[in-house]
Amino acid sequence: MGKGGSHGEGEKEQNMAAWLMGINTLKIQPFELPPLGPHDVRVRMKAVGICGSDVHYLKTLRCADFVVKEPMVIGHECAGIIEEVGSQVKSLLPGDRVALEPGISCWRCNLCKDGRYNLCPEMKFFATPPVHGSLANQVTDSSLMFPKYLIMSPGQVVHPADLCFKLPENVSLEEGAMCEPLSVGLHACRRASTGPETTALIMGAGPIGLVTMLAARAFGAPRIVIVDVHDYRLSVAKQLGADNIVKVSTNMQIGKGAKVPLLNILCHRKCSIHGNFQLEVDIVGVFRYKNTWPLCLEFLSSGKIDVKPLITHRFGFSQEEVEEAFETSARGGNAIKVMFNLGGGKSLQEPKAREATIQQASKALKLKPLRCCAL
Amino acid sequence: MGKGGSHGEGEKEQNMAAWLMGINTLKIQPFELPPLGPHDVRVRMKAVGICGSDVHYLKTLRCADFVVKEPMVIGHECAGIIEEVGSQVKSLLPGDRVALEPGISCWRCNLCKDGRYNLCPEMKFFATPPVHGSLANQVTDSSLMFPKYLIMSPGQVVHPADLCFKLPENVSLEEGAMCEPLSVGLHACRRASTGPETTALIMGAGPIGLVTMLAARAFGAPRIVIVDVHDYRLSVAKQLGADNIVKVSTNMQIGKGAKVPLLNILCHRKCSIHGNFQLEVDIVGVFRYKNTWPLCLEFLSSGKIDVKPLITHRFGFSQEEVEEAFETSARGGNAIKVMFNLGGGKSLQEPKAREATIQQASKALKLKPLRCCAL
Amino acid sequence: MGKGGSHGEGEKEQNMAAWLMGINTLKIQPFELPPLGPHDVRVRMKAVGICGSDVHYLKTLRCADFVVKEPMVIGHECAGIIEEVGSQVKSLLPGDRVALEPGISCWRCNLCKDGRYNLCPEMKFFATPPVHGSLANQVTDSSLMFPKYLIMSPGQVVHPADLCFKLPENVSLEEGAMCEPLSVGLHACRRASTGPETTALIMGAGPIGLVTMLAARAFGAPRIVIVDVHDYRLSVAKQLGADNIVKVSTNMQIGKGAKVPLLNILCHRKCSIHGNFQLEVDIVGVFRYKNTWPLCLEFLSSGKIDVKPLITHRFGFSQEEVEEAFETSARGGNAIKVMFNLGGGKSLQEPKAREATIQQASKALKLKPLRCCAL
Amino acid sequence: MGKGGSHGEGEKEQNMAAWLMGINTLKIQPFELPPLGPHDVRVRMKAVGICGSDVHYLKTLRCADFVVKEPMVIGHECAGIIEEVGSQVKSLLPGDRVALEPGISCWRCNLCKDGRYNLCPEMKFFATPPVHGSLANQVTDSSLMFPKYLIMSPGQVVHPADLCFKLPENVSLEEGAMCEPLSVGLHACRRASTGPETTALIMGAGPIGLVTMLAARAFGAPRIVIVDVHDYRLSVAKQLGADNIVKVSTNMQIGKGAKVPLLNILCHRKCSIHGNFQLEVDIVGVFRYKNTWPLCLEFLSSGKIDVKPLITHRFGFSQEEVEEAFETSARGGNAIKVMFNLGGGKSLQEPKAREATIQQASKALKLKPLRCCAL
Repeated sequence: MGKGGSHGEGEKEQNMAAWLMGINTLKIQPFELPPLGPHDVRVRMKAVGICGSDVHYLKTLRCADFVVKEPMVIGHECAGIIEEVGSQVKSLLPGDRVALEPGISCWRCNLCKDGRYNLCPEMKFFATPPVHGSLANQVTDSSLMFPKYLIMSPGQVVHPADLCFKLPENVSLEEGAMCEPLSVGLHACRRASTGPETTALIMGAGPIGLVTMLAARAFGAPRIVIVDVHDYRLSVAKQLGADNIVKVSTNMQIGKGAKVPLLNILCHRKCSIHGNFQLEVDIVGVFRYKNTWPLCLEFLSSGKIDVKPLITHRFGFSQEEVEEAFETSARGGNAIKVMFNLGGGKSLQEPKAREATIQQASKALKLKPLRCCAL
Repeated sequence: MGKGGSHGEGEKEQNMAAWLMGINTLKIQPFELPPLGPHDVRVRMKAVGICGSDVHYLKTLRCADFVVKEPMVIGHECAGIIEEVGSQVKSLLPGDRVALEPGISCWRCNLCKDGRYNLCPEMKFFATPPVHGSLANQVTDSSLMFPKYLIMSPGQVVHPADLCFKLPENVSLEEGAMCEPLSVGLHACRRASTGPETTALIMGAGPIGLVTMLAARAFGAPRIVIVDVHDYRLSVAKQLGADNIVKVSTNMQIGKGAKVPLLNILCHRKCSIHGNFQLEVDIVGVFRYKNTWPLCLEFLSSGKIDVKPLITHRFGFSQEEVEEAFETSARGGNAIKVMFNLGGGKSLQEPKAREATIQQASKALKLKPLRCCAL
Repeated sequence: MGKGGSHGEGEKEQNMAAWLMGINTLKIQPFELPPLGPHDVRVRMKAVGICGSDVHYLKTLRCADFVVKEPMVIGHECAGIIEEVGSQVKSLLPGDRVALEPGISCWRCNLCKDGRYNLCPEMKFFATPPVHGSLANQVTDSSLMFPKYLIMSPGQVVHPADLCFKLPENVSLEEGAMCEPLSVGLHACRRASTGPETTALIMGAGPIGLVTMLAARAFGAPRIVIVDVHDYRLSVAKQLGADNIVKVSTNMQIGKGAKVPLLNILCHRKCSIHGNFQLEVDIVGVFRYKNTWPLCLEFLSSGKIDVKPLITHRFGFSQEEVEEAFETSARGGNAIKVMFNLGGGKSLQEPKAREATIQQASKALKLKPLRCCAL
Repeated sequence: MGKGGSHGEGEKEQNMAAWLMGINTLKIQPFELPPLGPHDVRVRMKAVGICGSDVHYLKTLRCADFVVKEPMVIGHECAGIIEEVGSQVKSLLPGDRVALEPGISCWRCNLCKDGRYNLCPEMKFFATPPVHGSLANQVTDSSLMFPKYLIMSPGQVVHPADLCFKLPENVSLEEGAMCEPLSVGLHACRRASTGPETTALIMGAGPIGLVTMLAARAFGAPRIVIVDVHDYRLSVAKQLGADNIVKVSTNMQIGKGAKVPLLNILCHRKCSIHGNFQLEVDIVGVFRYKNTWPLCLEFLSSGKIDVKPLITHRFGFSQEEVEEAFETSARGGNAIKVMFNLGGGKSLQEPKAREATIQQASKALKLKPLRCCAL
């Protein structure tokens, strides 16, 4: 029995989650929590962002090497509030606001011990057997190529305390949920040794390209060039601080001795590069992230990175809103990050602040958000 | 006037070189030496190897971005004997046996100052204008993509003393000439941080693949796998110490978190890679070498690397032999490294030793050399 | 209940260990095993080496910041045979011969996640509360400066399976026990980027200095200089392969741009360096090791490292022999590594092989071992 | 004959410099320029800062291993205006404002080729024999320990064009002269891999400590602690942006796994460190700088670094002012950087701007400059 027992009654409310049932079919259904271990915490989700991979699963039941064969809870960019903590947890208390790092590595394999836990072949995401284990079982043949990727619940979850990072006072739950995509950008910047002598060239101005741009700036890159096929996305990148934008018909040329981090391309297994390797350009593979949440929170808290303009749309958690949110994300257009606010009536930000943020984002992006949920 | 003046009379002999005059046309013709600067030495070439790029020039008048439009002296893997030293040269004396590093970088650009002189955009090879400058002029439009590449003489040459490395007693002139291709392998091993925890996968068992294999072993790589399309080359690699050989029809898969150095591909400007970058495999560009001769000589002198088995054919410097040597190299087959011995009657090794080496090479390679020149 | 149940009866035999009871007082007394967790194995110790820190504890009840205030089981360089495996253990079976990595890190702190688990402030060695926990409790005030260091049993132990490394066929249990000190040398070589361009200068020719010398050679260091105050130790170093030995009265000077790894100095909290830092010499701190056992076993199995000549003395596990072993180690002189063979009548090596090794060591060291236990 | 001949007449004016004639004796005397080589430029000095080493020479005729035995021109932190360019110089024109990197390395030794030209044992500063060569000759016995260090003229100088860096429009000549001390800080930050995850601890809040603080901030260090013995200096550091200041009586403790760059300590040959190396703290030697001017100018031009508040005092170039300037620098107190303005009536900044800067500096430092020269 963990600490925070008065919240234990909360467990009797039925825990609900968004289940992927089939192509284009999401259902809000009950989701049973696993028992709370001594080093675990129970977290009530408050903000969950929609990732491109989530949309892929919804549209095709596939992402990269994974095939969804049984119903699965969806969503992995999240933040929430601690409801209960395990008996050995000292760093967190019920009521703490936390951002969640979703992957649980084994710490027993050679890659974990070598400081590259993001490559752990036994990596688990937190829905665990028997509730969702079926997905894991069905992808074992590809597990060497792509770690098991079970996706987390937007209701309540049980998660290791050391993967739940307390939010500083001035960082909102939505910003906490943004730590997950931002982490991809930070990890890329670390692997590419980004610093004040780096000229950053970013291919693609979608959500991952944009967080990578923000990360590169925070790592000190003085010149950032961003490339895309869409004029609209490029204009957003420009407004968010890109020094140069390049529409992709232009031929790009990478300078001598450069380091090129290739971010994880979740949905396509292979990638082709045509390169002049005699220039000693290095191509640096980048897969997810490791140990990035503390740095994300420092950047967000100090104001070196502002992710709020990326959150263009907000939805609640009714069946109708979940469907609309995914449609909005899938449509692309002016939607950058679509976020669920799972507040049950409580807002994630003070209303004024939120409105201001939305207007600021709209203005920054010179766009009129299609819809902002009225939480 | 440099030191070693008694050798000055030697200058009156007409200095000859192998000139590339057109497709498939090499001529032995006079080659005038530039003046000896205070930090230069004059070297009589004794051993010159044929590189794949030399063959490309002969067959097509092109290599990578270079187009030969005027006659050009050919050859750049070389060793010789000092004839004269400039007034400021302290490290070398006439009579010293030396291996030559062919490229002269500018030491004024940002890449030179940053410790990457191999990428210097002003890099010159030592045949200098006006004698051969035409090549340089004609490739200026591609000079950003590929440094000027003027190729050196197999007669006498004038070269900076700091790029002439004295051979240890137990290293032959032929081995000295092999420092140039071996350097490519060493530089690749350095860039890929090769060590006792590296499993080396080498794509291609030609001369560069083989020296890279020898270099990887000398850097401590405990397991070396080499891949090629030719059974014969793979059998050579096996005999020279590969742990595993893989014929290329087999699918290769590179493990997680690996570093992959891509050696310089002189003759094709672009290279395609299809990769699973989510494994954080790094592709490390490798162009030529920098500061590798001292390490080559240490490896050769200590016996950690033995390049002698790679020298499968030897020729003299008559018009007929030069043509035959290039034909032999171009034909491939059992020819790995074809070497010119420019001895003027003096052998590069004691005859017995050389015969032994040739037989050893033949035996090692289970092949009968087509021809060994009778120096 | 773990797998290997037939060995369960073995648990009824009383498990004995060498307890440090006070200054110069060791007693063979019962040692109760903790329960076997799902990822644990139970190992019967077969070879345990005496470390300098063990001797310090015996002589002073202190080592570095630790003070022994209650009886403690001693010894941490060890190898043994699996008796039982936990329910989730897949990599090991009863009967497997294994070398043990002694430290268990938390995998929850920032240093663990950052790939530096050797610096984990929660690091535990495997005797755990309540049996030996008293030591840990009594050193909490120094725990920021020096991780908790509980020392393991030479009888049977329970240990995480992922810290037990199966020995290759051709590696003996004694060599397995030597992985612990050897790991210190390997970790130093890694941190100092030791390779074929490193000139290694090793200060001190005791056991750690000698394993570091062997490690540096295996990492490709072509020139190794070793320094000590004792002629005898220097002569041992020379016989084991040092290129140069320097008696310490000579002034040592370290070259420009060098990297100097400073190995862990367990028994003295502080160390003074007088340096010419304008030469850009780097001093690299080295504390214990991380993820080194697989590499140790590869070096031992391939023959790149031979630790057998370092084992100069062997003892059994009677009260008398334990005392004598510690005296031998404390006396220094020609004792390098003193090893316990805990065989209960079964020898760790085939007798002939062992004798040969002993003679080889004696010969290599030009010494007559004081005593070799007649196991 | 170089380009910019109309300026040649300027050569007929007698070139004057500040000569160190003996202890506490500086004289303004003629200084003859060496001939202009094809890759050289002639520069009229406009701003020269006083370095601590200059003061040491004046007070003791020594610095580190150097002993001044003959009159020597003093000063090496400088910027000026190009008067004439050599025949091969393409990057600069007469009239260009440039900052000068003072050291000329040989580019022929192993350290230069290895990318560490700051450690070149043949490093020369630009007063060359026979005019000032005597100093170099007299320090040859210490040249292995400390590169030759000849100090440059504040009148006109001849210097390699590639060591003269054109100032951006918005960077003043005084800021250009500050590139030299700032370079020391940048090089330290590079060697210590300073970035957004670095907590910087800077020992000493003198000019080098302060520029290192500014550099660390520009490299993204989010927390900077600075230590000194003087309250006044610490208050300056605080005003210039230190997050924490520590008076040196407090014991400092450096965290686990840290990197500690040790800046060049010009005036004392040896330095002692008492460390807990078991924390894997790395001590990184730092000597001068390499290839730092372009980055300095980028930081100054972009506003990421503002060195103007460090310039607390300005003097002209009369005999009286030179003496007073050195006294001011030697006295310490509120003098941080003392700068000569060698304008001959032309101011280095627009007067208003300069006054503003001075007032800004005074305000920033809460001090009243003792004296600001009335240029």
